[in-house]
Order: sequence, then C-alpha cells, then structure tokens
Amino acid sequence: MAKDKKLVSEITSMDEDFAQWYTDICKKAELVEYTSVKGCMVIRPYGYAIWENMQRILDGMFKATGHENVCMPMFIPESLLQKEKDHVEGFAPEVAWVTHGGNEKLEDRLCVRPTSETLFCEHYANIVHSYRDLPKLYNQWVSVVRWEKTTRPFLRSREFLWQEGHTIHATAQEAVEETERMLNVYADFCEGSLAMPVVKGKKTDSDKFAGAESTYAIEALMHDGKALQAGTSHYFGDGFAKAFDIQYTDKENKRVYPHQTSWGVTTRLIGAVIMTHGDNSGLVLPPAVAPVQAVIVPIAQHKEGVLEKAGEMFEKLKALGIRVKLDDSDNSPGWKFAEYEMKGVPLRIEIGPKDIEAGQCVVAARYNGEKQTVSIGNDFAELGELVTRMLDKDIPQGMFAKAAENRANRTYACTTLDEITKALEEKGDGFVKAMWCGEEACEDEVKEKTGVGSRCIPFEQEQLSDKCVCCGKPAKCMVYWGKAY
Amino acid sequence: MAKDKKLVSEITSMDEDFAQWYTDICKKAELVEYTSVKGCMVIRPYGYAIWENMQRILDGMFKATGHENVCMPMFIPESLLQKEKDHVEGFAPEVAWVTHGGNEKLEDRLCVRPTSETLFCEHYANIVHSYRDLPKLYNQWVSVVRWEKTTRPFLRSREFLWQEGHTIHATAQEAVEETERMLNVYADFCEGSLAMPVVKGKKTDSDKFAGAESTYAIEALMHDGKALQAGTSHYFGDGFAKAFDIQYTDKENKRVYPHQTSWGVTTRLIGAVIMTHGDNSGLVLPPAVAPVQAVIVPIAQHKEGVLEKAGEMFEKLKALGIRVKLDDSDNSPGWKFAEYEMKGVPLRIEIGPKDIEAGQCVVAARYNGEKQTVSIGNDFAELGELVTRMLDKDIPQGMFAKAAENRANRTYACTTLDEITKALEEKGDGFVKAMWCGEEACEDEVKEKTGVGSRCIPFEQEQLSDKCVCCGKPAKCMVYWGKAY
Repeated sequence: MAKDKKLVSEITSMDEDFAQWYTDICKKAELVEYTSVKGCMVIRPYGYAIWENMQRILDGMFKATGHENVCMPMFIPESLLQKEKDHVEGFAPEVAWVTHGGNEKLEDRLCVRPTSETLFCEHYANIVHSYRDLPKLYNQWVSVVRWEKTTRPFLRSREFLWQEGHTIHATAQEAVEETERMLNVYADFCEGSLAMPVVKGKKTDSDKFAGAESTYAIEALMHDGKALQAGTSHYFGDGFAKAFDIQYTDKENKRVYPHQTSWGVTTRLIGAVIMTHGDNSGLVLPPAVAPVQAVIVPIAQHKEGVLEKAGEMFEKLKALGIRVKLDDSDNSPGWKFAEYEMKGVPLRIEIGPKDIEAGQCVVAARYNGEKQTVSIGNDFAELGELVTRMLDKDIPQGMFAKAAENRANRTYACTTLDEITKALEEKGDGFVKAMWCGEEACEDEVKEKTGVGSRCIPFEQEQLSDKCVCCGKPAKCMVYWGKAY
Repeated sequence: MAKDKKLVSEITSMDEDFAQWYTDICKKAELVEYTSVKGCMVIRPYGYAIWENMQRILDGMFKATGHENVCMPMFIPESLLQKEKDHVEGFAPEVAWVTHGGNEKLEDRLCVRPTSETLFCEHYANIVHSYRDLPKLYNQWVSVVRWEKTTRPFLRSREFLWQEGHTIHATAQEAVEETERMLNVYADFCEGSLAMPVVKGKKTDSDKFAGAESTYAIEALMHDGKALQAGTSHYFGDGFAKAFDIQYTDKENKRVYPHQTSWGVTTRLIGAVIMTHGDNSGLVLPPAVAPVQAVIVPIAQHKEGVLEKAGEMFEKLKALGIRVKLDDSDNSPGWKFAEYEMKGVPLRIEIGPKDIEAGQCVVAARYNGEKQTVSIGNDFAELGELVTRMLDKDIPQGMFAKAAENRANRTYACTTLDEITKALEEKGDGFVKAMWCGEEACEDEVKEKTGVGSRCIPFEQEQLSDKCVCCGKPAKCMVYWGKAY
C-alpha cells in the first residue's frame, strides 16, 4: 500500500539524544511545523487541539475564581513601556519594534507586546476611580513576542501563545492572596489535568519578573532531569500603580494606590507534557487534554461484521462524551498502532473477527502498554464503564505516579557543594535540594561550581541542615536547584 | 446614594447624530475603551464576552463542517508577502512593519499579518504532496493589523480580532463549493444567532479581495440605511498555488495545482449588532450572544422574602442553562432598569413584595419593551418555560422581523439614476436595487452621480428592467447598491 511507505519512521531514542527526540516528536506527531521566520512556528491541528483543551479547562478555572476575559492591543508605544523602570530594563532588549505603518514612519515606535502590564495599567488608570471599582480580575488569551536568540518549539519561541491574568486590588493582602490563589490554580491544573507533579515556591530575588515585588512559580522535572518553569504568578505591590498614577478613593475618602498581580502560563506546557510523559514510541498524552482520547482500530476490517461492530462501539463511546476516533482507513493495523502511539492517544481499542466471536475486545493503555480484554456484550456497557474509568482516573493517576517516581529518583538532598556535584555526576541531572543563606553571591557560586541554578524556594520547606550549602553561614531556607529549560 | 450619581447618562439620540450615538453605546455599555495607540482599543469584559459567544457558536459551525483550527505566526517576511502580485499590491500600503528585533536591525523586514494567505500557502507547500493530503480545511482565530487612516471601534480599527479560514482542495469545483458553503454558514449565523437579515451575493470585479478570482459577501443594512459588509468568502482558483509552487500528485500520478479559498468574519459583527438592533436607550442584544440573557431586578429588596425569592428564581433559571444575573446591589431599581437597558440584556424580570403576594413576576423584553405578568408558582416552572421560549424563539424572531422591516422600508428598486437620487433624498439612505451592464465605467458613474456604490450582485436576482440603470445598454444582472461602512 502506497500510504504504508509513510509508516511511522523511527524517532531518535531519548537516551541517545533527548533534544533530538523532542524535536522528532514535535514534527512526527504533527504538533508543529517550521516557517521562514526563525523562532516562529505553525501550530498544526493536532498541537492546537491540545492547546484548545488546555485553554478550555484553564478558562473554566479562571472564571470559577471570578475572572473575566478582555483583549488589549498587541502594540505598546515605547513611551508607555518606559514608565516602569525595572520593567522596561527587563523587556526592552528582547522586543520587536514596529517603526512604520503603511508607508509612514511612526513618531513613537511601537513594540509588539512581550507582556501587557503597561497596557493594563494604562487601562486601569482610566477605569479605576473608587473602592467600588475594585477588584478588577482580568485575563486575556493572546500571543506575545520576545526576540529570543536560541529557539525551540513550544519551549522558547519568538512568538508564543499564552494567557496573562492582570488583577488590581484595594489592599496588599488581597493581591498577595490572588497571587497565591492563581499559583494554586496552575498547580491543580498541572497535577490534575496534565498528570505532571510540580513544586510550588517563590523565586529568589535575582530571578523575579521585571517589576515584581515577588514572583511565585511552579517547577516541574522533565524526563531528562532538567527543570522547567511551568507557570508564574507575580505580586507587584503598588509599584506599577505609582509609575502609572493609578489611584482610587477609599471608604474614608482618601486617595490611595491599589495593589496588582499578574500570572501566566504558555504553550510551553505542551513541551512540558512531551518531556514529562513521552517515551521512545512518541508522545503520551494525559486524557484531559488529548484531542483523541481513544482510538478504535478494527482488525481484519474487510471481514463481515467487523466495521459494523466497530461503528456501533464508536457511537456508544461518543455518546458517553469520550473523544473517540474510529480509524477505518486502508492502512494496516500495524501502521495504525504505531501512528497512534506516536500521537500519544491514551487508549487503543482493538476489535477483530475473533474478538467479536468471543464477545470481547482488547483495550491497551498508551502510557504503560498494558492490555486487557473486556466483554462488549450487546450494548458495550462494560466497555463504556472501563474506558470512562481509565480516562478519568486510572490513566491520569498512573501517569502522575510514574512522573512522580522519576522525579523522586532524580531529587537529591545535599548539604555540600561536593555532594551536589557527585549526585549530578552519578545519578544524572535532577532537582537538588539544599539550604541557602539568602545571599545572591552564594546563589551565583552554587551555579558556577555545580551547574545548577536556583529554581525556587519551595513552600514546603525541609530542614536539611542549618548551614548554607555554599558559605556555611546560617541558612535561611531550603532551595530547589536545577538546570533549567 | 453615591453610585446613583453614575446613573446611566443620556446618550445622543440616533436620529440626531447616528455616529455619536454609536460611539456613546460603545463606551457607555462598556464594550470598549480607547488606548494611547490610535486605532487600537481595549475590548472590555462585556464586549469580549459577546465575542466569546460569537466565537463559540461559529467555531461549532466550522467544526461541524469539517474544519480544524491551527495557529500561524503573526509575522510575514516581506519577501513572502511579495510572492503573489495582486495580493501584495492590495495589502502592502496598509501594513505595520517590524524592522528591529531587540537591538538588531532585521535583514528582511517583517509585516504584522494583515491576513494570512501567504503563510498558509508556505505551509501547504510543505505539507501537501499527494491527493491523499487533500483537502485541508483550516481555520484560525487571531488578530490582524491594517494601518487604517480613519478608525472607529469595531467597524474599522488598526488591529481587529477575526477568524480566517484557509482551505485547499484537489479541484476547482470543490473549492467553489467550499466558498459557497462558508458564505452560507455566515449567513445562517447572522440571521439565526444575530437576528440580522443579510443579502448573499458576489462582489463586482472592482471590489474583489486582493488575489481572489471571486469574492462572495453577505451585506447587511444598518439602522441608518448604510450598508455593512458582514463577512466574505473568497475563491482563489489556483493563482496562489502557482505563485507559491504548491503542487500535488493526483491519482493518475500527474503533478497538478490545487485550488484554494479563504473566508473571514471579524469583531465588526459586534458593530453590526449595535447598529442593527440598538435604540435610544442603548444596546439591544440577540439572546444567542448576550453575556447576560436575563437579569433579575428585585423591587423593595429590603422587604422580607424578596431577595430569598429572587435567589430561588436565579437558581432555577441558571439550572435551565440560562445566562442569568441577579442584581442585588444597593443601586435603585430605576438605575438598574436603565443600566441593563443600556447593556441590551434581552430580558428583565422584576419581582417585589406585591408580586410575591400575588404569586407572580413581571417579564420585560428589551427589544420591544413589552411586559407580561407570569405566575411563579412553587417551582418557577411556568416562568422557566416562558423565559426559555422567549430567548430561543420569540425574541430572535421578533428582532429579525423588526430589522427585516427596516431593511424593506429602506430598499428601493430603481430603473434610472434620477430615481436613485430621488429615493435617497426622500426616504434616506438605504439599499438600492438596480440593473447593471457589467461595465466598471457604469459602476463608477453610478457612485459619482448618486453616492451609492455596488455592494454585491445578489444570488437572488430580480428582473427590474432589461437595461443598465446607467448607460441603458442591455443589463447583465441586478446589483445592490448602497453607502458602506
């Protein structure tokens, strides 16, 4: 068969070359395609459908916590970007500049938003006047541009899709609570919907967002032992409000500055899913975000009754709300098995003449390869129950446990720099837990001597020792260290 | 009460100054806010929620007709934009140019997409090889930029939100069918979900999309008698395929060019809704896209039992899937009435102590102001049925009939230029139906002498006479003429 030539070609083994394995999956699972603009990619239907599922779930969580969607312009005048000193210093070196509109040169050049704090501040200055106008809990789903030098699909691209929440509150306490609330929403989403364990914590001062008073983050460990920042939530205090002259009249009729936050996750989460769950056969998708949750592959489909039975099964599963696909194309079952393994479809259901005779079918889970036989009966009731339970519970829990085990095996508690170096050498890259005195000099020295940078100060602290792993002076906290994407 | 000062201020009367009336609604219904970038606006939560509803309905219609969503980059290299001659001529004068990334000057400057034909073509050239790869039925929801000189919220802005469908087919016939199919989807959406009657037709050659072989459009008539192009669908033939060297191997193993289409609707539809249904009290929203479909306003809410009953009513209507809001704020009922009229909420439900005593409530429809009393019984069953029926059927049908009547009153069949001039002078702006010989010279002359340009050649033709309204030579078709937004 002509199409069998397109038989899923082998991908690079992840143990041999993890970076190439990653790129192979991005291309061969048809998630992305390159374009003639460096660092900008096409997100193909299969990749975009994963993002749509992430969006739908997250958007529901945002709305359930009282947030509303808005849409700001994509352009920021240079003069507006410059209003908050730290912010412009952080972003100006990496923005794309629009200098001409049509044939005319612009007086004030415009940057394509790298993030939208300045635009939200300008808007808040217009619409926030009284304590009655607070809080504003806004979010937008857009793309942003950062002129990165080295780029990789999903992980670091010049344009990427994201959501950015921007909120403004009467008090510092409310704003801090919001910052923490949204970090928890992100963590719940990553652990619940993406089956990806994360560490919640605070960034060190050197790693804060440009203009933030404090930055919280969730950090995940990829299969190769490198850390990936999966979401951030920033508390701004009243710094932006002062820079943009946002004031409101409080209940005592005084003019005061409100407090702000912002928080975001990006299409990088698709990269996180690939590198957390993927294997040498391709992508492995968590059911909650899989475009196809179960694929039915008929065996010997030319034989009488096979396609008919497969069709009935399809209708039954679809009626249960499952994203199911029946592949009755003329490709061979072997080709189909490899194709849907590459694409990470959580469940494969095989049904052939012998199965039908025995009143059963075979259900195979992608993440662990386990197969089981299940009765199809007259109405597929038992199958429907099994598939629903596996998609909702068994598979996400199993995937989470597998990822958590990998992380546990690659998390090293160390009390000296030598221990760090040794652990990384012997066991490979991973999270290092070690005490820190709080000084930036030690943070830098740890990175210089061992190669791992601070990822975050986790909310769940442990007392590994009372001394800084670097200088030996009294420790202030335990830090997660790692090499980062 | 302090907040009562914010009592909905009067808006300009539409009869006095339609343009100002429009702007007043955009601002006072909190749909948009201006920014410091000319022609770029903030779409506020209430405006964006209308767009989200439009998106959800349209996206469902696109998926039901086999389309998949993708996401292309926002940047197009100048060299890529230049590949199709007519296309670049049409768009280059009105694009925004990125010339610098970070601190570096770009070798090939990038335009911010004004539309994405060129990007889709580049992608199709990469992924279409065989007849087995066809068709590709892609769509994306993004924003685009066109450097317009005069701008108005929703109607004409430098950045606007839209969807752009881009499809590629093995044969011309398939592509033409797709072009027509999507025009019909747009018309069904406008008439069914927006209660806005549209004329389906073909653009004259002078009005085609840059690079298209033919452009179809739906044209609507606004309340002031001006026409608004509400959606377009383009057939490209194989012109783009040739310019971008997209070829596929057909079943006879020959290399041939595929045929393409594109189609789009924008946030302009929000402007169309405002100007089709709005009145001197503000916005009037069709229930299908209204962020709030019904608002419950308690009367004398401090009296015992009122808020309790209103709360029960809210829960009941919410459980029926209605987007319902209970306003128990301390603003006066009068303020609330005016506020929700301004915001165009389709139904208002009033409930006060006397109503509760009589076991009833009052339901008022926004579009015609009619009130009716309905029993609330123990379980609000009758109210639930009434509200559902009004939102699903009575209101959209009533709004459609009202808009269709306005259009009928403002549609003038004319057989001479003098008749056109006279009709417009006596009855005001509107659609003119008149015969045309097909020559561009006559099209221009009609516009010059009467002020109305060709809107479209409607699919539903009438034989008003056998002579061109302008030159008197044999007519080829009837054309809709009008002044356009």
